[in-house]
Amino acid sequence: MKRTIGEMGERRVIETILRSLDPMPGIPVPFGDDASAVKIDGGRLAVIKTDMLVGRTDVPPGMSLKEAARKAVIMNVSDLAAKGVKPTAIIVALGLPRSLTEEDVEQLAAGLNMGAREYDTYIIGGDTNEASDLVISCSALGFCEKGRFIERRGAKPGDILAVTGSFGRTACGLKILLEGFEAPKEIRDILVKSVLMPEARLKEGLALASTGAVTSSIDSSDGLAWSLHELSMASEVGFVVERLPIAPEARRFAEIHKLDPYELCLYGGEEYELVVTVRPSLWDEAEKALESLGTPLRRIGVATRAEEVILKVGEQTRIIEGKGWEHFRT
Amino acid sequence: MKRTIGEMGERRVIETILRSLDPMPGIPVPFGDDASAVKIDGGRLAVIKTDMLVGRTDVPPGMSLKEAARKAVIMNVSDLAAKGVKPTAIIVALGLPRSLTEEDVEQLAAGLNMGAREYDTYIIGGDTNEASDLVISCSALGFCEKGRFIERRGAKPGDILAVTGSFGRTACGLKILLEGFEAPKEIRDILVKSVLMPEARLKEGLALASTGAVTSSIDSSDGLAWSLHELSMASEVGFVVERLPIAPEARRFAEIHKLDPYELCLYGGEEYELVVTVRPSLWDEAEKALESLGTPLRRIGVATRAEEVILKVGEQTRIIEGKGWEHFRT
Repeated sequence: MKRTIGEMGERRVIETILRSLDPMPGIPVPFGDDASAVKIDGGRLAVIKTDMLVGRTDVPPGMSLKEAARKAVIMNVSDLAAKGVKPTAIIVALGLPRSLTEEDVEQLAAGLNMGAREYDTYIIGGDTNEASDLVISCSALGFCEKGRFIERRGAKPGDILAVTGSFGRTACGLKILLEGFEAPKEIRDILVKSVLMPEARLKEGLALASTGAVTSSIDSSDGLAWSLHELSMASEVGFVVERLPIAPEARRFAEIHKLDPYELCLYGGEEYELVVTVRPSLWDEAEKALESLGTPLRRIGVATRAEEVILKVGEQTRIIEGKGWEHFRT
Repeated sequence: MKRTIGEMGERRVIETILRSLDPMPGIPVPFGDDASAVKIDGGRLAVIKTDMLVGRTDVPPGMSLKEAARKAVIMNVSDLAAKGVKPTAIIVALGLPRSLTEEDVEQLAAGLNMGAREYDTYIIGGDTNEASDLVISCSALGFCEKGRFIERRGAKPGDILAVTGSFGRTACGLKILLEGFEAPKEIRDILVKSVLMPEARLKEGLALASTGAVTSSIDSSDGLAWSLHELSMASEVGFVVERLPIAPEARRFAEIHKLDPYELCLYGGEEYELVVTVRPSLWDEAEKALESLGTPLRRIGVATRAEEVILKVGEQTRIIEGKGWEHFRT
């Protein structure tokens, strides 16, 4: 009983918390999904999500206060996007170190507003406090039809595993910002921007939800590998990943620095793509829905009965470990 | 432009943030009220509130982690109570120092659950993060009829100023916990408990809202004086306070330590009473609604046309200054 949370890791901390909480009877979405919900009138759900940005762990060197505040909004929008829910409004609790200046506060507010307006939503309230770290705790509120909310737990063996974009840019960008790696300017800008100005796949999440084709969904904010394991555990399926959508800039960065592109692609994090499973009979509808937005829906594998996540490219087979960004540990 | 937020104080920080935010068109509750809202179907509102507890400033010595987590819930419930809205569900973003143990996490979770269950609501989701301070950022969600939400801005000159309880216990309790003041056991326990185990006036807030008698409302979490000034500014009225409901234990504590009981009563904070204005024609209904709950509704003064807050007891008249707990400054 004397373990610190540094020894426990985030997942066990969450398990410990859950054991102490009385579950809400008839709760429409299980605790631990990307967002929470309560039933309201007319067969609809009110969906809420809170995600906290902490300066110490979530703001790499080179990220401005404006970018940090914008990112705090994006983190929450992305989780609602994965559930197929539009954020109607956002509230923000701020923890601010006393040393910040008036200009800093203006930058933070501008970033919050920018993030919200990019996704056609608004900051409608909040709370300010003094804290040692910069803390930006956003909560997003949205509404959807009950059947429209896409949980983590609906994948069935045989469903097609797909993602909205390509992976690995943020892992490279973080190596540049945190570890001083170098890269030619034409890819450096793209890699760094993927970290400083992430984008949430909101239009894509809403379009996918409208098809009814998606059986489970999560965003890739803790890394692709971690997301696959979360879907696997929640849905009680496994995955065989047959191709990895490595971003061309990440492939080039890997070549330059003799890094494993699969590692960059699987274990990056801070990347806000959607990772979904799709009913095979409705694949065409799902693909078409994203095509009209100019975003490819990339088929990367299949859900299986065995609860393990395997990479199988050509002759090569390897286990994809369930590691990724985990608070307290990493 | 080089002022720090320590020089600005919380109110100017909030003003600075507000200037950068695009207002949501048709927003049903103005920014800066105790809670925020969006319209939903059927003439109803979805109401959300976020309030962050930071260990450094909101957890006095002697408060356990369980009590701190419970308080983080109470803070949010109290704000919804002041608006006449029942919290349907609560989500929690946690910032946890790495040194916490598994037992600490259990205590935090137990406190969150205790606070929620006391007010017939549930913790339905959350987020955990690493932070230097203990940070507990709760967000509460509730629903009400559009006309039922009690804003800060509805008071009219002539309305009766009233409160739900008596004041001053927490100011004394904080002096005991923070400054080492002493008190006889029989009052010490009550004073300390008022700080460690605060209660929100939820039943009272809901009962008052159901009467339609209340024209403006706020909780007294930043002190009675501060609350009066907030109502005054939002409603563009003043107040003459004709009697101050000093808690008997606070009066005794003041006598022992030769303190001004009015100071304890007006400038305490961390006290979760409701401060409301009532239409004179419906006073009896409001009083009766609380009587059935065993809580007296105490008439303490009247709203006036002059925008100043004055204490007028017997021959004595003095200005009640708009000071109270303000982050960054105090």
